[in-house]
Amino acid sequence: MRVEIWTDINCPFCYIGKSRFEQALDAFPHKDEVEVVHRSFELDPTVKKGETGLVVPHIAHKYGISEAQAAANEQGLGQQAAALGLPYLTEGRDYGNSFDLHRLLHLAKDKGVQDALIDALYRGNFVDKESVFADEEHVVRLAVGAGLAEADVRGVLADPDAYAEDVRTDEREAAELGATGVPFFVLDRKYGVSGAQPAEVFTQALTQAWGARSPLTVIDGATGDADTCGPDGCAVPQA
Amino acid sequence: MRVEIWTDINCPFCYIGKSRFEQALDAFPHKDEVEVVHRSFELDPTVKKGETGLVVPHIAHKYGISEAQAAANEQGLGQQAAALGLPYLTEGRDYGNSFDLHRLLHLAKDKGVQDALIDALYRGNFVDKESVFADEEHVVRLAVGAGLAEADVRGVLADPDAYAEDVRTDEREAAELGATGVPFFVLDRKYGVSGAQPAEVFTQALTQAWGARSPLTVIDGATGDADTCGPDGCAVPQA
Repeated sequence: MRVEIWTDINCPFCYIGKSRFEQALDAFPHKDEVEVVHRSFELDPTVKKGETGLVVPHIAHKYGISEAQAAANEQGLGQQAAALGLPYLTEGRDYGNSFDLHRLLHLAKDKGVQDALIDALYRGNFVDKESVFADEEHVVRLAVGAGLAEADVRGVLADPDAYAEDVRTDEREAAELGATGVPFFVLDRKYGVSGAQPAEVFTQALTQAWGARSPLTVIDGATGDADTCGPDGCAVPQA
Repeated sequence: MRVEIWTDINCPFCYIGKSRFEQALDAFPHKDEVEVVHRSFELDPTVKKGETGLVVPHIAHKYGISEAQAAANEQGLGQQAAALGLPYLTEGRDYGNSFDLHRLLHLAKDKGVQDALIDALYRGNFVDKESVFADEEHVVRLAVGAGLAEADVRGVLADPDAYAEDVRTDEREAAELGATGVPFFVLDRKYGVSGAQPAEVFTQALTQAWGARSPLTVIDGATGDADTCGPDGCAVPQA
């Protein structure tokens, strides 16, 4: 079974939702047969590369709320995180363009360390004092800590085309699947869960999707089995 | 809609089947909404890296048929290819371990040129006199011709771990989906087509899978919409 999770490193509910999903997955009897893939979704692609600032005044300005309200939101998020045992930097978090972080997550997917990198980037953004948007060395340290080779990380960061197409493909697919926000969980392209739902909702979704697994319907036309190659050779009609 | 095609560069029916599938896809009214992904399947992973030789005596020895029969098989394959307008080197084709070629196909996927590379590798194996198994420079030329940067290609070839996990994941998924040979076509993880079927079978499969597309079933438990972040910010409960 495959669970695809669209997220952004900028997104507090993605950080919180991942933890709730993992509570459900850890208790799921078939967890070893569940493949989890992280997919890219930029919450705000209009933020330019290099543009950063503190989240609280940015949010207040953007949505026309007071800075006090925006600061209270961060406290509320911190409380939700704490309820899961997750640290959360309620003051001083910054925002920025996440495209390069998504490109690195695709590199990490290729290297088999995507889950480790997403956890590291969440920690880098929601816990560490250093910025993941304004401090490239911080990002490199996190990526190397997650198991990537430093040269690979610097190579991808230096080449704006590297994995760019993968990020855009993920974003197109999110739109096609109807996602308008994140986190967005898709199970076997059949069931969708939107938001940082309670763990029991993820348990329900895993159970339902597991029960709905079905073998492929084989389409073979009137000719039946056609020409294939397998470990026992190619079924070649004699000329 | 997504079509995944498990193939091996060693596999004549994969070369032929791709062409038949593309005939159907070209005539399919929704072809612009069909995403095609090539996935890895090693026909014979027991062939060691560096081991190569002519296909005809290899096949004859392996399956206990005469060399004349094995040579006649190649002629038969050449005729099937010719019927599609595909060139086919009926004499002198060699075999080898395809793991590195699959790793390059994953690099090409990341760079958005996977389809171009698979066509180039088929041409390299089934048409060109140079080997794709014994002549690394031939492979590099084909990959560069398909749009990859030479340094990337050489980097992947020099690092046996690069994209290795992607190849193995594809192979595990093929086994889980019930594929025992290739080419193996999977439409939206719902329909399967095995073998180099006639184009009309692919047309039927595309039509059937298109009709069966369905929106995700949303699972949201009793709480309804949960916490998400979107372009309009995060829906944060006031603390």
